[in-house]
Amino acid sequence: MDIHDLSTPAVIIDAAALERNLSTMAAMVPGQRLRPHVKAHKCTALAARQASHGHTTFTCATPREVMGMADAGLGQDLLLANETLDPRRLGAMASLADAAMVTIAVDSAETVAAAATAGIVNVLIDVNIGLPRCGVDPDKAGALADAARKLGLVVRGVMGYEGHLMMVADADEKAREVNAAVDLLLAAHRDVGGDIVSSGGTGTYQLQTRVTEIQAGSYALMDTAYASLGLPFEQALHVLGTVVSVNPQWAVADVGLKALGMDHGNPSIDGATVWFCSDEHITFAPDLPVKVGDRVRVTPAHVDPTMSQHDAAWLLSGDNVVDRWSIDLRGW
Amino acid sequence: MDIHDLSTPAVIIDAAALERNLSTMAAMVPGQRLRPHVKAHKCTALAARQASHGHTTFTCATPREVMGMADAGLGQDLLLANETLDPRRLGAMASLADAAMVTIAVDSAETVAAAATAGIVNVLIDVNIGLPRCGVDPDKAGALADAARKLGLVVRGVMGYEGHLMMVADADEKAREVNAAVDLLLAAHRDVGGDIVSSGGTGTYQLQTRVTEIQAGSYALMDTAYASLGLPFEQALHVLGTVVSVNPQWAVADVGLKALGMDHGNPSIDGATVWFCSDEHITFAPDLPVKVGDRVRVTPAHVDPTMSQHDAAWLLSGDNVVDRWSIDLRGW
Repeated sequence: MDIHDLSTPAVIIDAAALERNLSTMAAMVPGQRLRPHVKAHKCTALAARQASHGHTTFTCATPREVMGMADAGLGQDLLLANETLDPRRLGAMASLADAAMVTIAVDSAETVAAAATAGIVNVLIDVNIGLPRCGVDPDKAGALADAARKLGLVVRGVMGYEGHLMMVADADEKAREVNAAVDLLLAAHRDVGGDIVSSGGTGTYQLQTRVTEIQAGSYALMDTAYASLGLPFEQALHVLGTVVSVNPQWAVADVGLKALGMDHGNPSIDGATVWFCSDEHITFAPDLPVKVGDRVRVTPAHVDPTMSQHDAAWLLSGDNVVDRWSIDLRGW
Repeated sequence: MDIHDLSTPAVIIDAAALERNLSTMAAMVPGQRLRPHVKAHKCTALAARQASHGHTTFTCATPREVMGMADAGLGQDLLLANETLDPRRLGAMASLADAAMVTIAVDSAETVAAAATAGIVNVLIDVNIGLPRCGVDPDKAGALADAARKLGLVVRGVMGYEGHLMMVADADEKAREVNAAVDLLLAAHRDVGGDIVSSGGTGTYQLQTRVTEIQAGSYALMDTAYASLGLPFEQALHVLGTVVSVNPQWAVADVGLKALGMDHGNPSIDGATVWFCSDEHITFAPDLPVKVGDRVRVTPAHVDPTMSQHDAAWLLSGDNVVDRWSIDLRGW
């Protein structure tokens, strides 16, 4: 079976490139220094590959990701790095009990109370270190930790995500700003206590030398946004399409915006200029002629919301299909 | 059960607003003059409501939509308005035989041959009327119809989609350009023959007086892009979120870009300024203070790829939940 046997659009993963990415990261950030973020792939089969490289603790963005990782036997140490107030979902995670170790981000009295009420045991204090999103002010982190402990919660430490710094182009400026953000996180940690200082992503992992663990995810599969940073990771994921219509000036393949994450803009195609995406089509001007029926590889601008559009990914060795992985952590 | 009992993010549909949209369209474009496009909602329960308003013929964008509509007993007259070469999927649609009437768009010798080989009976000649996407040149449509008939296919007529004209703001310019596009389609139809001239969308349906049927879809649920056109349809769909974090300058809800179609840009929230979306969050500045735990309604910029992110939609009467509809036509 090869790529010509796949129905399209289809997520395809170059198995060798993926392995190289996982090995490269494991060599640079080994063991529990990395807590891979599963939101980037939503795939327990891929998470199991990360675990085989020594990365056995994981970051999750949704309760569904936590539950699915636990079901897959990958629940040794799962961090839900987002706040939730949902009693059903908190209760489900609490009911995992000994089947998984679950730690949940909290940043307010309300999220602390919701976690405690649901029977959650472990929390991290989520600290705002510059991205205008979740996280308590650094100077209020200690008080929140005290309040959590008063309700019986175990506070394992702090987390803070410097998402606003991932794409800073100038290396010196990026280093300076990441260090300033980590200063805030470490100051909060002094007030909070606990063993964990969790931060970082694929765009900043090289600079995150003062935290105990890094939450990178995109390094495994990559996308055109992160490729622009010159990181030592290869593009391992594409969306395979079929050319369904050819015109003298352009061609059309069946990889539309419903098969892609579009928030970072249009995808790209090697050897072609992408004009635009419609729901089920990509219109592009190829450098060399293409024929109806040809297969094309489309490279998404953003990997996370591309994976979440599909129910499976196909593992390739060259053009040969070697496995099918369910994208089994979709939804919430 | 009301909106406070729903886990979020959740697609919610105002049942009364939806009914008004369906009634309004049925009064203006009754019966088989409209062939509603199910790609806008991917939901057979919603399609059944359209059928109850007299719209019993449907447009589909993917083989999966065709198969799901047939399975739901809504296969009286289904048009796959896109080209496909996939022998498995063409074969599945052909095997529906008497269980559904399926007509497939073709625009090349290759797509004609693929349809004939798979045992498809009915085709429409897809004509390029200005959008750089699929469709044969108008002056080659007759020859393609002849080739299709030689292979035993029934050519029911022509279709052409003027997608590039949906958002033209000036009314006179829009009318002039739509008429010029329809001139091309009617010229092709004279060469092709058949009973069907299919075109149009929610942005142009009022101008499409010379075709036999209109392929509008977004009118049922609407989005902020189409709302800007001043059409007689209401916003019936929102994505419900929960405020999970509050800061003096901003608040954060759990409706992120994985719960939204982002290709038309950021969603909006009444009474707030949306700053940005992350995978699982929307950061916004509310005009009036909000509290952690509050529910917010997020209005997507593009309805089609919002529905395709979710597995269900909740029907509301006011804040009360009255039904759950499966979004059962996702995928390809």
